[in-house]
Amino acid sequence: MDFGSYIRDIKDYPKPGVVFKDITPLLNDPIALRKTGEALLGFTSNMQIDKVVGVDSRGFIFAPMLAEKLEAGFVPVRKKGKLPFKTVAESYVLEYGEGELEIHADAIQPGEKVLVHDDVLATGGTAQAVCKLVEKLGGEVVQCNFLIELTFLGGSEKLNGYPIRALLQY
Amino acid sequence: MDFGSYIRDIKDYPKPGVVFKDITPLLNDPIALRKTGEALLGFTSNMQIDKVVGVDSRGFIFAPMLAEKLEAGFVPVRKKGKLPFKTVAESYVLEYGEGELEIHADAIQPGEKVLVHDDVLATGGTAQAVCKLVEKLGGEVVQCNFLIELTFLGGSEKLNGYPIRALLQY
Repeated sequence: MDFGSYIRDIKDYPKPGVVFKDITPLLNDPIALRKTGEALLGFTSNMQIDKVVGVDSRGFIFAPMLAEKLEAGFVPVRKKGKLPFKTVAESYVLEYGEGELEIHADAIQPGEKVLVHDDVLATGGTAQAVCKLVEKLGGEVVQCNFLIELTFLGGSEKLNGYPIRALLQY
Repeated sequence: MDFGSYIRDIKDYPKPGVVFKDITPLLNDPIALRKTGEALLGFTSNMQIDKVVGVDSRGFIFAPMLAEKLEAGFVPVRKKGKLPFKTVAESYVLEYGEGELEIHADAIQPGEKVLVHDDVLATGGTAQAVCKLVEKLGGEVVQCNFLIELTFLGGSEKLNGYPIRALLQY
């Protein structure tokens, strides 16, 4: 499937000079939605995965679906203050500002194998912080996968050492 | 399955006097995650669904999974300013404040049958606004379903006229 044909370029969003990759046409099409899930799942064929971590909020779209198909649990990573239980936090710098991400302290058990998923790999700051959170809890990041990698932003260098897969590269 | 045993009560979150229903233990357990998806899917058995609308951000967890299984498209409703394309907006009052929700103007075609999903039905303000957005685009809300209904907040009255289903009621 030509997944790229379902991605819409939005010029000057969220700020002038940026071309935003809008994934909503892909989500809106039943066949593209299903085939995207299958393609992401294919990235982890024959891998043992205990937990799938999805990043608030567009990472929540495919991470639970992947967890269900992998017979794994789903773990949300959210912006500071959004998770209600005891958390572990990590600061990060992202493409359009900076922030702090949190994970529930009991979300991952030591030694568990973890798939990290988000919609877009941009500068890699978010994904790097998520990997650190997983490791703080004793988990092992076995792959970071994305719908889209914006290669010109160099995020894969920041994730040096983690296996990375992306459905589309720009 | 006793889904309620996977829900964690968090006292005084997000403010004093409130008991927050934390769904993350349910998401964290592979079997509970799968069976929750199956149970939600069962609410729409034999119904034709063209689009599943999920509400930012915890509604994103199950709505795409349901869309995939129903062979429908997934449509995100998000807080103001988060969707990049042309939007339609609706103001609403919610349990802990007020806000504005948006949907992409091209997300639903006139006459399409729409399932609205969110994690919690509280006062019903959010779900009501989502139903209005669907109808502004010409869609027909055939069901609103939730993981949890907080019956003491009376949200079902605000959704009078829409079929409502919830996995757990408190």
